[in-house]
Amino acid sequence: MREDRGLLVVVSGPSGAGKGTVCRHLLEIRPELISSVSVTTRLPRPGEREGVHYFFRTPEEYERMREAGEFLESASVYGSGYATPRRFVYDHLRAGRDVLLEIDIQGALQVKERVEQGVFIFILPPSMKELRDRITGRGTESEDVIIRRFAKAYEELNFVSRYNYVVVNDIARDAARRIEAILIAEHCRVDRNRELNRKLLEEVFPHDVSTYQ
Amino acid sequence: MREDRGLLVVVSGPSGAGKGTVCRHLLEIRPELISSVSVTTRLPRPGEREGVHYFFRTPEEYERMREAGEFLESASVYGSGYATPRRFVYDHLRAGRDVLLEIDIQGALQVKERVEQGVFIFILPPSMKELRDRITGRGTESEDVIIRRFAKAYEELNFVSRYNYVVVNDIARDAARRIEAILIAEHCRVDRNRELNRKLLEEVFPHDVSTYQ
Repeated sequence: MREDRGLLVVVSGPSGAGKGTVCRHLLEIRPELISSVSVTTRLPRPGEREGVHYFFRTPEEYERMREAGEFLESASVYGSGYATPRRFVYDHLRAGRDVLLEIDIQGALQVKERVEQGVFIFILPPSMKELRDRITGRGTESEDVIIRRFAKAYEELNFVSRYNYVVVNDIARDAARRIEAILIAEHCRVDRNRELNRKLLEEVFPHDVSTYQ
Repeated sequence: MREDRGLLVVVSGPSGAGKGTVCRHLLEIRPELISSVSVTTRLPRPGEREGVHYFFRTPEEYERMREAGEFLESASVYGSGYATPRRFVYDHLRAGRDVLLEIDIQGALQVKERVEQGVFIFILPPSMKELRDRITGRGTESEDVIIRRFAKAYEELNFVSRYNYVVVNDIARDAARRIEAILIAEHCRVDRNRELNRKLLEEVFPHDVSTYQ
């Protein structure tokens, strides 16, 4: 990835950590952030628009794209394919825009293998009790599903070591502010700013300096 | 450095980049940041207090401390010794407080050899013309001194690659805000938060989870 590109920001975490709410706050306080749009094989629901909510593709087209390496990650959910299109992400990054990817842990690990320079942020619940309450609190799942989700979240916490940053989601807006700080800091990293220094040095020709010495 | 410690934040840059002004703004917006207090062999000036502005030591005591490895860095300026006392810094870090060290490039490189986990921030001027104007603008130096300072600053720009972050000092308050973001981000780094994850996992005993599976 060239250094004048935007950042690929991957926000991930176990079910119930609240990554969706945190990302909504983040997009509010940093509206210039581009939210990645997924490719899916499922049919559009009322109100869903091509290129805004999803890129809708037939299963055949989806499979062709997958085999051609056009996805940064992909997963199958209830028989439908969902994937992050490489080109959408890279077009924005090349134009210098930061791209936000809100994604589960399996997806994030796939992206990490392909985009090493991404910024990988793991959202943690403030406590396991809170995580259990949040999973339960949705009220839409059976006890069996809740228990499996909680056990899975517990297992997934071990993947935090593969990430760059960990953000505790105590208050979603504060967590979003911390992610904003991470973006600002990442843009200041020396290894993303080699051009900056070169340009400064080029302002003065070496012979200008040698006459000063 | 243990992970529940504070951050050692080293703000450095060439003469004229404005690191002093940026640090003053930073201490205003983040008053809990501890400003490191140097050891010096020079005599106190009116109003200067021991332990607040400097730790005043005799040349013999200073030399003994230096030989005993009690300094993170040291330099001689116009015949007086100036040094950063290891113990002052580490006492605050161990208590979980972030410590700010505003220091020239030679000093920062000495600190880096001793404290790898420090956060090293290089302040850049927005342009070399601005740097020249700032050095000239002090109005207190002869042209000869100005020319030597500018040439030295030019040389020093090459050391930016040894730092973690680069912050352009266009508007000092904005630069300070970017440093604040760097501090927030560094506190979120996974490698500084291994305890956090372990504590969460310990809330639930493995047999709790295994009964869920």
